[in-house]
Amino acid sequence: MAAVACSSSSSSTRDQQKEITESASETLTSTISTGNEARLACRNKSLTTVTSGLAPGYLQANLIILPSRYASDFRLLCARNPVPCPLIAESSAPGAYDQLRSYIPGSAVAADLDLRHDAPRYMVYRDARVARSHVLDVAAEWTPDHVAFLVGCSYSFESALAAHALPPRHAVLGRNVAMYRTAVPLCPAGVFTGGTYVVSMRPYPLRDVDRVREITRAYNATHGEPLDWGWDTLARLGIASIDEVQWGDAPLAADGETPLGALFGSEDEVPVFWGCGVTPQEAVVKAGDKIQGTVMAHAPGHMLLLDSRDEDVVKSSYD
Amino acid sequence: MAAVACSSSSSSTRDQQKEITESASETLTSTISTGNEARLACRNKSLTTVTSGLAPGYLQANLIILPSRYASDFRLLCARNPVPCPLIAESSAPGAYDQLRSYIPGSAVAADLDLRHDAPRYMVYRDARVARSHVLDVAAEWTPDHVAFLVGCSYSFESALAAHALPPRHAVLGRNVAMYRTAVPLCPAGVFTGGTYVVSMRPYPLRDVDRVREITRAYNATHGEPLDWGWDTLARLGIASIDEVQWGDAPLAADGETPLGALFGSEDEVPVFWGCGVTPQEAVVKAGDKIQGTVMAHAPGHMLLLDSRDEDVVKSSYD
Repeated sequence: MAAVACSSSSSSTRDQQKEITESASETLTSTISTGNEARLACRNKSLTTVTSGLAPGYLQANLIILPSRYASDFRLLCARNPVPCPLIAESSAPGAYDQLRSYIPGSAVAADLDLRHDAPRYMVYRDARVARSHVLDVAAEWTPDHVAFLVGCSYSFESALAAHALPPRHAVLGRNVAMYRTAVPLCPAGVFTGGTYVVSMRPYPLRDVDRVREITRAYNATHGEPLDWGWDTLARLGIASIDEVQWGDAPLAADGETPLGALFGSEDEVPVFWGCGVTPQEAVVKAGDKIQGTVMAHAPGHMLLLDSRDEDVVKSSYD
Repeated sequence: MAAVACSSSSSSTRDQQKEITESASETLTSTISTGNEARLACRNKSLTTVTSGLAPGYLQANLIILPSRYASDFRLLCARNPVPCPLIAESSAPGAYDQLRSYIPGSAVAADLDLRHDAPRYMVYRDARVARSHVLDVAAEWTPDHVAFLVGCSYSFESALAAHALPPRHAVLGRNVAMYRTAVPLCPAGVFTGGTYVVSMRPYPLRDVDRVREITRAYNATHGEPLDWGWDTLARLGIASIDEVQWGDAPLAADGETPLGALFGSEDEVPVFWGCGVTPQEAVVKAGDKIQGTVMAHAPGHMLLLDSRDEDVVKSSYD
């Protein structure tokens, strides 16, 4: 499944990402069946590609690594905005790249770990601006002052939708999910002000929306049920056009050719929006000159794979 | 301090509430110095008035009591929207009116408790519409199927602001805090769809906003730091006029006479908005015909007093 809801590939980096994707070794990735195998393959530089569809059933995570002085504000940002920013783990202490404090009850998240090497590719920001793009590791940038945060990703519920005969359109067509900036404000936290929700969109028949809501509701640690649905949602969220995405691929009708916007108003295809894992990275960038120093993150689509399984996050926080 | 941020008195019920307020016995309330004393006074029907300023230092809570079939959806609504809907406790089991499951680490919330009697006055809804208003108890309505939820209230941080020489304007003037509906969507949860944030507003000089944010940030279980601030916020939140409140009293300048809107654009007085405890009640009403049966709540301003102290909620969730 071409699940990329956690990717934050902008139009400008998409070509570069595609090039990297196309260089993926199918032989290699077919031998990786667990999160731990994926991390080891990143560590020895044999896995350097996007991770969608890799090691099915294992959680994948967005990664953001901040100077420790911003850690409590970022933690609070996630706590105040748990739908777009579901925090699943963080460094056990400042500087810890090999040990996590898990927020998934009963799951250690990742035992054999080196956060400087274990994502396939990384982004490096200085003073909230991109300084290095798609590098293979961040060993040179990591300091004893850095704190890593792992944020949930929607791969889990996409698999669940597919398992219930409701596969996301973009996956069926082998495209990236459509992602949009919105005007919906995040609740600010310390230095993190001015942020807004980023949303991902998957079209479904209106008659299936209740079922889609039910299936994804349980995945609270990976964005949970949709934020909104229906064609009138565009105005509510402040999205100018369903055909103009900010990340990912523009959405298409079932024929794989017609732009989804041509069906505006149809009940056979309504846009359904979820909180998106791009939101935390946007929040870091939006904080602008309030964020000084080196910030690291996974490169778009190049997620950190975990030992936790999809089922570990189902309703874990609200039982 | 006339802190009433948790009040949900609409214009239509304000006269009734004022009448009830004016009948308060000052002799009685001056003898109540703890949350437990307040609950006992409600239980024997000697305390029947609004609770602002009562038993300083003790937490006060919004109360919503739902048929058990809506409990998990409401719990999820709070989990997905923790800033306007900070859940601090709930019935230990369906039907339990005398025992709570606390979400405040290390605090039992309220030991000697009867949720059918211990708020001064109650609202009763049938099929999401008001059926009884300002009744003294809900003993006749409570069933073994009902689950009570306690939601945090901003009294705590108002006391903290006053203690730091930044008393809220409405408290200084002896008025109710200004509250507004916004266009900012709640993250929906099950039957709770279509809700939007309700916000409370306290004006401060722009130069004091950072300090105000710092002081209130720690009170994460009672709405925490502001959602937004400044005059351009009105457009972002979808508030037509600062002088047209939906609950509470219209805000005034420091002279106690000039409508705050006359200062539009001034940096000496900017509106600062917080998540408001009216939000959960609004969410119940907005759910409309998806909520069948009997729902109960405290009457606006007639809060449930707890054994927990203000300091118990400071950063309790994020240490």
